Amino acid sequence: MTPGRLEAFSDGVIAIIITIMVLEMKVPHGAGLQDLRPLLPVFLSYVLSFFYVGIYWNNHHHMLHACTSVTGPILWANLHLLFWLSLFPFTTGWMGENHFTAVPTALYGVVLLMAAIAYVVLQQAIIHAQGQNSILKKAIGRDWKGRLSLILYIVAIAATLRSPWIAQAILVIAALIWLIPDRRIEKSLAMSRDLAIGSHDKAAS
Amino acid sequence: MTPGRLEAFSDGVIAIIITIMVLEMKVPHGAGLQDLRPLLPVFLSYVLSFFYVGIYWNNHHHMLHACTSVTGPILWANLHLLFWLSLFPFTTGWMGENHFTAVPTALYGVVLLMAAIAYVVLQQAIIHAQGQNSILKKAIGRDWKGRLSLILYIVAIAATLRSPWIAQAILVIAALIWLIPDRRIEKSLAMSRDLAIGSHDKAAS
Amino acid sequence: MTPGRLEAFSDGVIAIIITIMVLEMKVPHGAGLQDLRPLLPVFLSYVLSFFYVGIYWNNHHHMLHACTSVTGPILWANLHLLFWLSLFPFTTGWMGENHFTAVPTALYGVVLLMAAIAYVVLQQAIIHAQGQNSILKKAIGRDWKGRLSLILYIVAIAATLRSPWIAQAILVIAALIWLIPDRRIEKSLAMSRDLAIGSHDKAAS
Amino acid sequence: MTPGRLEAFSDGVIAIIITIMVLEMKVPHGAGLQDLRPLLPVFLSYVLSFFYVGIYWNNHHHMLHACTSVTGPILWANLHLLFWLSLFPFTTGWMGENHFTAVPTALYGVVLLMAAIAYVVLQQAIIHAQGQNSILKKAIGRDWKGRLSLILYIVAIAATLRSPWIAQAILVIAALIWLIPDRRIEKSLAMSRDLAIGSHDKAAS
Repeated sequence: MTPGRLEAFSDGVIAIIITIMVLEMKVPHGAGLQDLRPLLPVFLSYVLSFFYVGIYWNNHHHMLHACTSVTGPILWANLHLLFWLSLFPFTTGWMGENHFTAVPTALYGVVLLMAAIAYVVLQQAIIHAQGQNSILKKAIGRDWKGRLSLILYIVAIAATLRSPWIAQAILVIAALIWLIPDRRIEKSLAMSRDLAIGSHDKAAS
Repeated sequence: MTPGRLEAFSDGVIAIIITIMVLEMKVPHGAGLQDLRPLLPVFLSYVLSFFYVGIYWNNHHHMLHACTSVTGPILWANLHLLFWLSLFPFTTGWMGENHFTAVPTALYGVVLLMAAIAYVVLQQAIIHAQGQNSILKKAIGRDWKGRLSLILYIVAIAATLRSPWIAQAILVIAALIWLIPDRRIEKSLAMSRDLAIGSHDKAAS
Repeated sequence: MTPGRLEAFSDGVIAIIITIMVLEMKVPHGAGLQDLRPLLPVFLSYVLSFFYVGIYWNNHHHMLHACTSVTGPILWANLHLLFWLSLFPFTTGWMGENHFTAVPTALYGVVLLMAAIAYVVLQQAIIHAQGQNSILKKAIGRDWKGRLSLILYIVAIAATLRSPWIAQAILVIAALIWLIPDRRIEKSLAMSRDLAIGSHDKAAS
Repeated sequence: MTPGRLEAFSDGVIAIIITIMVLEMKVPHGAGLQDLRPLLPVFLSYVLSFFYVGIYWNNHHHMLHACTSVTGPILWANLHLLFWLSLFPFTTGWMGENHFTAVPTALYGVVLLMAAIAYVVLQQAIIHAQGQNSILKKAIGRDWKGRLSLILYIVAIAATLRSPWIAQAILVIAALIWLIPDRRIEKSLAMSRDLAIGSHDKAAS
């Protein structure tokens, strides 16, 4: 199986997840502006989750871009990641309907944390399959964003015991750090391409 | 990331949006022709939205056709556009269920306006990434359809204060103008291809 | 735009239509075998529609296989076809829930008829774009299946005035005729390929 | 039609099936941890079905990888398989909502069995199309996993008469055996490639 297949299937699942989340926003019966007010928290949780799924889609493809062949463990690690992402519509809907109270916010954080762990597991499966000179390993480097996210999710889950609003703020920040441009993987890929061309030139001369 | 990936993912999301809108048309319990009558406004709003999503799908691909590489800003601008499109099923259902009354029609117009703005933002992100000799910039030219649409959406939103039916009429007209054949992008692409072949011929001779 | 894009988007929409139809089969509350009985007509109408959507998917791709470039009219004719197909989940659910009574069966037939007409319109749009030596025109030949289907749908709609069961029988037959193997398009494509190779050989010798 | 098309469409349908199953897990109204408890069986049945659909997706692609051209019977056998897979969300929801009682568990087993039979039928259709030297036939060998699965599904269906919990245990085991690494098809493909290269070398020398 080529990474292309895996990517296309994951794309399909992620596209459906990001779209069916909106179905949790039930059409209200009244026709006035005030009928929309109860939907505001559901809408806000939808915005946050849309953003998170977008981040995962983005990172997922950059990662698979550095993956050349798909092994059994990679395949199952990928399905494992998709499983946790598929729970986003549920936790998003529950958190939104309950106006960001403690328990639903904690569960939202737990699913985010599990997805992040599943992402790391998938990363390790690819690195392991690539062996010593793994392009992906060089590409991710110290992976500060990934590590920081994991910590922030745990802090957010703990914070729900105190104040769900602090937890929300942390989850928003954990999303925003991914907007900081980061071209590690592209750089590393470009570098390895240059090296390949370089060694090819040497061989040719 | 290649435009192909972005296109495939956007295709998936748009295909889901266009299809789940139909789920707002709930199956009636009765089995007579008169049981369909209450569904007529929902059906009409579905037709209008299907048409709008079709226009977006069409324009989106013509635009990406003139895009050669995907940067971070392009990626996020694209997700931003998909976000507003993903709200179509909600506003369509609300407008249909409330028989095209003022507030739901205004919200429908607002989401159309936001999607149109997101489209312009995406266009600018691609033009910016292509630099001075942007193919897309030449291709869109004065973009009278895009500009007229923006104005018509704003007029329609304002018109709901007076009569939601005038607003509807404006929204229908704003959709129909996109049926007028328009081969600017293809033309421009064909031209730049001819130029490239021309300069190639010169170099070869 | 290449036919590949059009095909991929249509594939996505058809895949979603064929799958969300199953959502009309609501999970019953009881846990006994007798709780499934009321679902039987919904299940049967699902089977019929699954089959019909499968036929459309199959024919659609054979048709696009004989299409080399996509024009504006082809694009809109294709969206028009997808529109009627997107109404299948609704008419399927309504017919199933009302145990194949007259009016829902008639509406089911009307949507089938409209989809068939949309298919013919799309076919004509492709043939028109290909000009005089249209591969598709040769490929479809007299198109007896397409013509017979149209007639059967009309007969079935009329038959609902008498007996919805006769109408159902006709709709089932109209589906089964598509199972008869039919390799017209492949044959014609193979032929035109042979001709192309033949003329190429002549030019080379 | 190429296997690529068939794969892409099947991918789409499977991606939607795996994702809409989660919609059976309705968002609870309360905001406490105890409000999640009634959802536990629905969640567990979702996990099992997610796993099963993942297995089908995986096996399906390995099988199509060994298929070079698509005939009419292959196409319909594939749609037949997708039909049974499309019933997973329904049987999963029914089994979960009724806490794994006998009849819903039996129906879940029946749909699994029918999907497994449809899979074998598709396999045979491909082998038949490939003729005597079928790569797929060599690749699947004795197919002990496929055969064992069929037997386990039948045993599980019978076991529901005694104890649905024994049935559940059997269904879980029937899923887990697919995690055992199995590279028959890849091996066989690699072998036939080697043979092809070998004979090519001979012809060249």
